[in-house]
Order: sequence, then structure tokens, then C-alpha cells
Amino acid sequence: MTEPRLIYLPLGGAGEIGMNMYVYGYGESGRERLIVVDAGVTFSDDSSTPGVELITADFSWLIQRRRQVEAIFVTHGHLDHVGALEFVCDELQVPIYLRSLTAEIAISNIRRSDDFTHFFRIADPYPSVCAAGPFSVSFLPVAHSIPEAAGLVIETPVGKIIHSGDFRLDVSPVIGEAFDEELWREASDGEVLALACDSTNALNRAAGLSESVVGPNLQQLFKRCSGTVFATTFASNIARLYQISAAAGQCGRKIVLLGRAMTTLVEAAASANFLDRLPNEISLADARQLPRNSLVVIATGSQGEERAAMARLASGRKFKGLAARAGDTVLYSSRTIPGNETRVAATLNAFSRLGVETIVDPKDRYHVSGHPNQPDLSQMHRLVEPELVIPLHGEHIHLAGHAKLAEENGFEALVASNGEIVDVLAGTILRGESIAPRRCYLDGRIFSSSGKFLKTRLGMARNGVVFVVVRMDKRGRNLQDVTVSQAGLPLDDSESFNRQLASDCLDVVGTERLRRASRSNAYSKRILGFTRDYCRENIGKVPIIRVVTIRG
Amino acid sequence: MTEPRLIYLPLGGAGEIGMNMYVYGYGESGRERLIVVDAGVTFSDDSSTPGVELITADFSWLIQRRRQVEAIFVTHGHLDHVGALEFVCDELQVPIYLRSLTAEIAISNIRRSDDFTHFFRIADPYPSVCAAGPFSVSFLPVAHSIPEAAGLVIETPVGKIIHSGDFRLDVSPVIGEAFDEELWREASDGEVLALACDSTNALNRAAGLSESVVGPNLQQLFKRCSGTVFATTFASNIARLYQISAAAGQCGRKIVLLGRAMTTLVEAAASANFLDRLPNEISLADARQLPRNSLVVIATGSQGEERAAMARLASGRKFKGLAARAGDTVLYSSRTIPGNETRVAATLNAFSRLGVETIVDPKDRYHVSGHPNQPDLSQMHRLVEPELVIPLHGEHIHLAGHAKLAEENGFEALVASNGEIVDVLAGTILRGESIAPRRCYLDGRIFSSSGKFLKTRLGMARNGVVFVVVRMDKRGRNLQDVTVSQAGLPLDDSESFNRQLASDCLDVVGTERLRRASRSNAYSKRILGFTRDYCRENIGKVPIIRVVTIRG
Repeated sequence: MTEPRLIYLPLGGAGEIGMNMYVYGYGESGRERLIVVDAGVTFSDDSSTPGVELITADFSWLIQRRRQVEAIFVTHGHLDHVGALEFVCDELQVPIYLRSLTAEIAISNIRRSDDFTHFFRIADPYPSVCAAGPFSVSFLPVAHSIPEAAGLVIETPVGKIIHSGDFRLDVSPVIGEAFDEELWREASDGEVLALACDSTNALNRAAGLSESVVGPNLQQLFKRCSGTVFATTFASNIARLYQISAAAGQCGRKIVLLGRAMTTLVEAAASANFLDRLPNEISLADARQLPRNSLVVIATGSQGEERAAMARLASGRKFKGLAARAGDTVLYSSRTIPGNETRVAATLNAFSRLGVETIVDPKDRYHVSGHPNQPDLSQMHRLVEPELVIPLHGEHIHLAGHAKLAEENGFEALVASNGEIVDVLAGTILRGESIAPRRCYLDGRIFSSSGKFLKTRLGMARNGVVFVVVRMDKRGRNLQDVTVSQAGLPLDDSESFNRQLASDCLDVVGTERLRRASRSNAYSKRILGFTRDYCRENIGKVPIIRVVTIRG
Repeated sequence: MTEPRLIYLPLGGAGEIGMNMYVYGYGESGRERLIVVDAGVTFSDDSSTPGVELITADFSWLIQRRRQVEAIFVTHGHLDHVGALEFVCDELQVPIYLRSLTAEIAISNIRRSDDFTHFFRIADPYPSVCAAGPFSVSFLPVAHSIPEAAGLVIETPVGKIIHSGDFRLDVSPVIGEAFDEELWREASDGEVLALACDSTNALNRAAGLSESVVGPNLQQLFKRCSGTVFATTFASNIARLYQISAAAGQCGRKIVLLGRAMTTLVEAAASANFLDRLPNEISLADARQLPRNSLVVIATGSQGEERAAMARLASGRKFKGLAARAGDTVLYSSRTIPGNETRVAATLNAFSRLGVETIVDPKDRYHVSGHPNQPDLSQMHRLVEPELVIPLHGEHIHLAGHAKLAEENGFEALVASNGEIVDVLAGTILRGESIAPRRCYLDGRIFSSSGKFLKTRLGMARNGVVFVVVRMDKRGRNLQDVTVSQAGLPLDDSESFNRQLASDCLDVVGTERLRRASRSNAYSKRILGFTRDYCRENIGKVPIIRVVTIRG
């Protein structure tokens, strides 16, 4: 019998912002009992993952070990932590520990699955403990840009791990629990083997700000606006919604929510007993009757989403009876997630063309980040005093920057990327056991992939696609005729291109005598090569080519 | 005979950053004599313009009036001002006025055309004048992030226009001409009808910085680096290349240029007599022999370009005999152009995984912008004292922000977007004459387009493509058989999908009796509809579908 060990394996989130999924295991090598922390998604974009609905970490490793998995723990309700829960639960069928608001959001977000809420176990905060095999886990409340966020205190037979979750050291977060240094100190008491810690802002040297700094600035802004204000932020940022609503009221305005996610999240907050309702909120029907300068519309679409309320309004047309006009103001009380810059800019420019004033946050005036900057991370390192800092949640530059900072603070640090298994007690990566990081894609169905299918899609988008239909005689010996069709090619006259390529195929390849056993295959290969050369010569690029052979 | 008028028409650049092309005209309505200012490109991206090599403003309006065009003036050598010159010149065949370095860059950048340098007229700076029909144009030197940038003083029969070009109010630009306030004051003397002025940084409230602030910071950085430094910036930023080289020398390092654009631009600068060579430059062969800590590599690829030197180095493999290793430092002495964030991040993360320290400019330490911020624009407004400020070069939010600033400064301002014709004396947009803005795409050939072909490409990328081959009998009456092929669909087993769809088509549509005159067409439409429904039901999305009918 081998010595039991304590392992950590990031499946997603250690190499990107989003798509969080981490595994801890304790036991004999290969027989560890496992817990999963978070099951998040990331979003697709047309430049790398066109047509994909959602992306999650590849959890095949867990599926192969499903009998070893004890439970899933979810730190908070952001979709990059909770959005893949239904898919993971569908495979693992284990208890899911989470807090009330997180549960409400998980339910509202179900896309494919039947109801799986019978797996839910609503967790009370620290010092309450959830038992999962050899692990005892507590939800340690922390401030973040969503209420009921929590770090996890993971007690194991060999010592304690603190998993920070996403957090901000905010002592006045407006809505939700403040960061309670004493509570964190108490929970970190004794030996902490490792602090697995948020890294998204690890390259930012300024101290993080409190949510509460935003309110007075919003009030000041609303005072000087003459028309309707259209404000957008993440719907899950309940404190921000509250502050926008309160500032509106202080300026004699009412607020109305626009977009499904807004109403869903406010309802979820109400179900979780966080918020009865937003102050100064009125119905859409009432909002339509109000003078333009008496209204703040809180709308979905801070990331430039094509179908969200902000993009609809930016078109200049009415959306649910409301419209943006010259003299109105648009406020992005949000950060643009990397990759969304172009479409956010498109929305802003569309508003600008309508004569609407557009305000995007100039440095922490109308938006503050929910994540810890360098001084905040340093404070956390010193508070927890771990034997090892394991940076998580971030691109590699963030993880590396966090590790460097921890080392400067006098702590050992270890960067483990997605798929790398860490022996926590030894503080080393188990290279031999590490797995190649893949992703799961939701596109019709959910499937694990190296992403090769995306190369085909991007290849078609860049170079077009040509289909060549080759009709052989009944015995498959002689080529009878060729028909060409295509899409996405830069052609002036596509009909004549189709005809010319087909006739050249027939003239050149059709008259060749191919001596292969299977002439049909041989012709097909020759047609492929001929088409490739023809396209390179005539349109300067090589499309995706499919040759279809039929007989008769 | 109608009164002659003075018009301004932005074809590109007034609605985006990049793709600059502006027209001025003087004469009777519809018979104006025209000059073109700049002929620039913008670059494609996979999320909106996959497969396109280059994008320019649509210059059909000029082609239709080619006999009215007197000349083209190019303000400076950046590709968003000079990159489309060959295509425009090919159609217009008129003299091109430009300064030496701009000419060298234009020549080095020819992609498709034969040599068109016989159209070049090398312009001397102000007060030298180039005559073009009713216009007399002077090149007024100004500082920018490339040497030999110039504003244009455009004298017309009814008064003067100042066209700023891209500029920075830099009195110590290290290489190239400093901003000479007295010279600009002199050139603006008397009545200025309009100041058509750079807007890219019009939302930035800080004062612009001089190129010279970067040098000492670079020196400080290089001193603390232990391995090789890989620095990247725009190759045309000759002053930056010079400062990196000088700072390297001050730290006992040599520099080597890596990537074609770097050597091309330094050669162009030498041909234009700007720079003999960079200080401390050595050959690649010598660089390979040098200790790692004695070298600064200046490499192409600051925008994350896949094939540029930085991306090659980030792979960890040798490129031209040089490789990045743990302990080296990567410096982006540049700004990431919006839209390129994701691929720049990918390169940075790849370097980070190699153990290389990555430094991206934290706020004007290792990079300064070449464009005017708000205080600089205000200074320019007051210096030129125009009757009208026409913001150009920028997205709509930048143009609108610039107009607002001009009005706050007490000047009239008019936002004209691409395709909108301005009557300069009246200070109004001639709505009835304005044209719908389109773009020209270089993709094999260059063509003007509304962009519909891009929808097909993105549609294929998102939803895949299905080709259905329908074989009718010889008389086109009865459906004989159906063959399916596809690409880009999210299929587990594509063979069985193809077979099933084909057989269902045959079973359902093949047995229907269609009573149309042309049965072949009717079958084709039914197959299209059937395939659409089949895909929606079975894979949850509707691909691009092409039905090919053959007979026999």
C-alpha cells in the first residue's frame, strides 16, 4: 500500500479567465477520493470558436473516475463558476454544495438538462461544515461583485487548504457580506498547506477599491444628464444595480429593468432573500409614460451581445416600447471582457450616431473590479500564511505574475496550468500524470474536443468551400460528368467559375487513364488535387474541398 | 451657371481608426475639381472579415469622377494612410504628392501592382507649394510616430483649409521634425475656413507625452534584465527603434533586427536620408554568437500577427537562429490596436509559459501615443482658429467627442461620417448627395462590396455547410437519388448523418408528386426546405445549404 497523497488539478481557469474547474483529491495514488470546485463556462467568439454556444473545461478525467468523486462545491453564482454545472452533474451525479443565491442562478441558467436540483445542498457559511469523503469543507464568506461569494476552507487528513474563490477585500460592499478579516484569520488559523488564490488582477499594482466608491459618482453623473440614462452592467452585480437605482432616486428618477437577465437576477436575489426589490423600480408600462428625463433604464448587454437590450437600443428602434434618442446618455458601468472590445465599440458607435452621449468608465469612476490587485493579494498572503501559494483563475501571465508577487512576499509559489496535477505536500507538479488540456464544446450536444473541427470552420470562413460532384458510370470505371458548387469564395461570377472548373476537371482528369484498383477513389483524389491547383491559380487561395462521387 | 462650392467628403477614416481617405472638391456642383488626401488600409479579422487580405475605403465615387481628380496627397507613411495607394492610383492615374520616406514605404509595400512610382512627386515642405487644379497644397511638417509626417495647408479660391493629418505636439521627437508652433501659426495666418483634424485620442483627457520620455525608462528596464531582451514596436516608429538601440548601447548591449518589416523600414529611413543606421546594430550571424545578456532583439509582431517574429519566438522554437528562454524579457513598446487584444494575449501567454518575463506598457512608460489628446487638440484649435472644426480619423465616439471639445473651446464643429458630403462654406452636410459607405476588399482581386459575402463566410463558420446533390432522370422529371456532403457541422458520426439525410430526402421528397412546370426546380426547393428542417431538428442549427441538381 502506498502512502496517501493530496493532489490538486486545475481542469479549467488556470490558463484563462473564465471556465473555472478545479479538483482536489486525497488518498492512495490512483484511488484518491475527489471533490470538484466550480463548474464554469466561457463564451465563444467568431474568431476562434464560431458557432459554439458555450465552452467548458474538459471533464473527461472526472468522468473516468466518477466513482471516486464525492461532491461538487460552487464558490459563487458567476457563470464562469456555475454555468457548466448541469453538464458536469449529469455525468457525475453527486451532491452539489452551494449557497442560496448561487443555487437560484444555477437553476435559472439550465439550458439542456432536466431539473437536477435534487443534488443541491444549500450550504451555511463557516463555521458550518460540509463533509465529503476525507474532506470537510466550509464556505467562508467573502466580498465579490456578486453577493454570497465564498472562499472554501478545505480540511484534509493532512492539513488545510484555503481556496479563495474570486474575491475583493471590500469592507463596505453595499449589498452582501463584507470582507471580514478576523473571520478569515480565524479560519486560516494553524498550518495552511496551500492557498489556491484568484489571479485575474495580479498584474495591477493599485490597491483595489470598494463597491461603495461608485454610488456618489453615479449620483453626480445622473444629476447632469438631461435625457434618459441607459445604464448597463453585469446583471449579477446586485450591489451595482442597487447603487444605480438608489442614485437614480436621489436625482428624482425612476428605474426600469430591461432584458431578461436583469429581471431573472433580481428575482433570484429576492428568492435568496437578499433584496426585496430595487429601490425606485417601476414597471415597463409605467416607464413608457414617464418624461424622458425622469428615467434610468438598467439594461443587459454590457459586453456588446448582439441580442441584448443595449444592442437593440443602439439600433435606434424601439425595444419593449423604449428608445434611445439624441440627448440621452449611455453609461457602461462595467468592464469590457477581453475579446469583446470590438462588439462593445460597435454598440457605442451606434449610440453615438444617434446623438447619444456615451460614457465608458474612465478608471474606476462608475465601475470597480471584483478581483484583488497586487496589494490585496499581498494582504491575503500574509493573512493566510500558507506553505504554498497556488495561483489560479487567470491567463498564464496572471498566474506567473501572482507567483512572482508571492515569492517577493516570502512565500513559496507554484504555477500549475490546466491539466497539471500538483502533489500539494511535496509542492511539485506530477509531470507523468498530467493530462493534455482540452475543452468541451456545447454545439447542439456537448463534446470534448482538441478543437480540430474549429479549424475546418475557420478554414471555410477564410478560404471558402468547394464541393465537386463526380458522376462515374455504374461500374465506377469512367468519369461521366462533373458538377461544382461553392460558398464563400471571392468570385465575381460564381456560375461561370462553377462551369469552368467542372469542365476543366472533365477535360483534364476525365481523359486520364488511371490504373488503380479502385478507379473511383483514384479519380476522386485526382479531382481533389486538380481543384486545389485550379483554385490556387484562379482565386489565389485554397478552399476546403469536398469531392462527392456518385455512380449511375 | 451655379455658384462654385467647396466640398469635403470622407470616404474612409471618419467612422473607424484606419482606412483613411478624404476628398476635397472645388467648382460647380457635380463638376468640382477633386483632390484626394491619403489612401489607407485597415486589416481584416476572423470575427468580421475572415479571409480578407486588406480593406480600403470604397473609392467607386472617385472612379466615377476620374476625370475630375487632380492629384493624391499622402500625409505620412503609415499603412492606414498609404497602404491603398497602388489600388487607387491604378484607377485614377494622377500625380501622387508625398514626402521621401512616405514614398519609400509606399514602394516597399506594393502587393499587386506594377511599379507606379512614375506618378510620385516628392514634395518639399511648407512653404513649398504643389499646384493641383484650383488647389495649392503645402506639406506642413508635424511630429507623429513616424518621421516626415505632415499636415496639409490647402489653399482654395475661397479660403484655406488645414488638414492636420495624424499628429502629436511633440517638441522633442528624437528623430524627425519637431512640432513647430510658430510655423503652424504662420501657415494658419489669415482666415482658415476649416480645420479637419485627427480625433483618435479625442476621449483622452491627459496631455500627450513626448517620444523622448521613453528613452530613460527603456535604459532603466534594460539594466535590470538578465537574459536577452525581445522588444517589439511598430517598425515605422523609427524614433522608437533608435531609442531602443541607444538604450541598449548604454547598457552594454547590441541590437539586432528580426522580421522583414523591421529591416525594410530601417532601409527606407536610410534611403530617405533619415538615419544612416541604428546605433549598436549587429548582424544576425554576430547576434547568434553573443552572450544572451548582451543582446536586445527588436522584432516584428507587436499586434500578435501569427507569422511575425514575436509569435515565432513565443513558440519556443528557434527563429533565424535566435530563441527565447526562461529568464529572458519580452517588452511590448507599443499599443495594442483594438481588435488585436486576443492574439496579443495569446503571444504573451506563450512567452510566459516559456518562463519569459512579459512587460506590456503600464501607462506611457515604454510607449507613448502619436496622436493628440484633449489638451493637445484644444491647443491646435486655438492655434489655427478655424471657422469650423471637422473631426476626422476616429470611430464615431471619437469624432463626436472631438466635436464636443471644439464646441467647448468656442468653435463650431461638424461631424461628417464616411460618405457624407460637407459644404464647407455653409458648414452643413449635403444629405441628398451623400453616399452609402461601403468598403473595398482585397481577396484575390480588389472589389467594392456591401459585405454580404462576409455573412455567408461567417454563416458557414458558425453553422457549417451542407451540400445536397440531387440526381434527376434524364428528362428532369423524377428524383433518382440524393447524396449529401457537409463541412463544419457538430457531428459525432458524419458518415451516418450524410446517409440518413440523403435517404430521408429520397423517401420523403422523392415520393411527393410535385406539379410545377419545372419539376427539377420544385424538387430542389423542397429538398432545401427539407434539409433545413432536418438540420434544425437533428443538430439544433441551420447551416448554409446548397442543393446541386444533376441529370442523367
